[in-house]
Amino acid sequence: MRQGRLFVISGPSGAGKGTICSELLKSEDLELSISMTTRAPRGKEVDGVSYYFVSHEEFQKTIDEGGLLEWAEIYNNRYGTPKAPVLKKLDAGKDVILEIEMQGAMQVKKNYPQCVLIFVLPPSLSELKKRLIARGTETPEQIELRTRTTLDEIKKIKDYSYFIINDDLSTALQDARTIIRAEHLRVDDRASEIIERYENEEV
Amino acid sequence: MRQGRLFVISGPSGAGKGTICSELLKSEDLELSISMTTRAPRGKEVDGVSYYFVSHEEFQKTIDEGGLLEWAEIYNNRYGTPKAPVLKKLDAGKDVILEIEMQGAMQVKKNYPQCVLIFVLPPSLSELKKRLIARGTETPEQIELRTRTTLDEIKKIKDYSYFIINDDLSTALQDARTIIRAEHLRVDDRASEIIERYENEEV
Repeated sequence: MRQGRLFVISGPSGAGKGTICSELLKSEDLELSISMTTRAPRGKEVDGVSYYFVSHEEFQKTIDEGGLLEWAEIYNNRYGTPKAPVLKKLDAGKDVILEIEMQGAMQVKKNYPQCVLIFVLPPSLSELKKRLIARGTETPEQIELRTRTTLDEIKKIKDYSYFIINDDLSTALQDARTIIRAEHLRVDDRASEIIERYENEEV
Repeated sequence: MRQGRLFVISGPSGAGKGTICSELLKSEDLELSISMTTRAPRGKEVDGVSYYFVSHEEFQKTIDEGGLLEWAEIYNNRYGTPKAPVLKKLDAGKDVILEIEMQGAMQVKKNYPQCVLIFVLPPSLSELKKRLIARGTETPEQIELRTRTTLDEIKKIKDYSYFIINDDLSTALQDARTIIRAEHLRVDDRASEIIERYENEEV
């Protein structure tokens, strides 16, 4: 039985990794990794669907047991990716997709080096700036800072396996699908499975 | 400027690697690697197009200078892949495709480890046997031997990056195209080129 692959979609914020991830979930045979959080459920959020909602103690216990692929603290709440459900899906031959900011992606790589890291790039820094200005939620100083941060983040692309430039969304999605499908054609850990297919044949 | 990729199509004989290679040349932006040989030109064969036709002395000199990616002797004639024209195309950003038997593929890997090795598999050993029987050019003993050899060859798939099962030709071609396109999306040696693209922008 083929082992599933863990696809990690990351890159600077504003490059559109969220949209790419949700579109891929519609068209490809992928399972979304569900995060664990200490924050309280909001509105219609369901435990085990939107998030795994846990106490601070339970979260800390999972960290201590090495049970998270990555985690971070944001405004006094913790968010992380539980390892066990991801590994279970991969062992069942299912591909899993995880959309995450760049520091989290590096933690996942450390804890599961077989993952496939995909870096989503904005078409250009000026285009990213234009989008931020149009949105009107940030000051010119904040926009300047963010543009510089994005360039620093792009400089970390060496740590990734693949890149996608999100200029036209449909092209970006096609690129993402190409990567996912090509990964299914890699020999890697599948050599024995392929050999057995021919060995077990009655000729 | 992006460095081109060298795609090496190999696998057991009879799996259809020749057909896949010539179809890819029609649809993809690829250059075919041209072999060097000591045998005399036949019919309409043109030097530098069908083969580079050289003397035994010249061939030996090229070997001695480390100028071949691989070579073999078949019935007193030598055949090889000259390194210089391939590297020149790759440096100019062109992708090159090379269809070759398995021992040659391993020589290419040794001499140019960045190459992308693709293994073309028959749908099954029984199907391969059926094709050989239908062709009627080999004795039952020869067919038995060839089936066993093919299984031994398949056991060497670990040395390859990708595999394609050539059951339905159009699916096999689609797989090959997916691999070629995904390789264009790999970060690898392109990190600096990608970073420069954003660094040199006026924001």
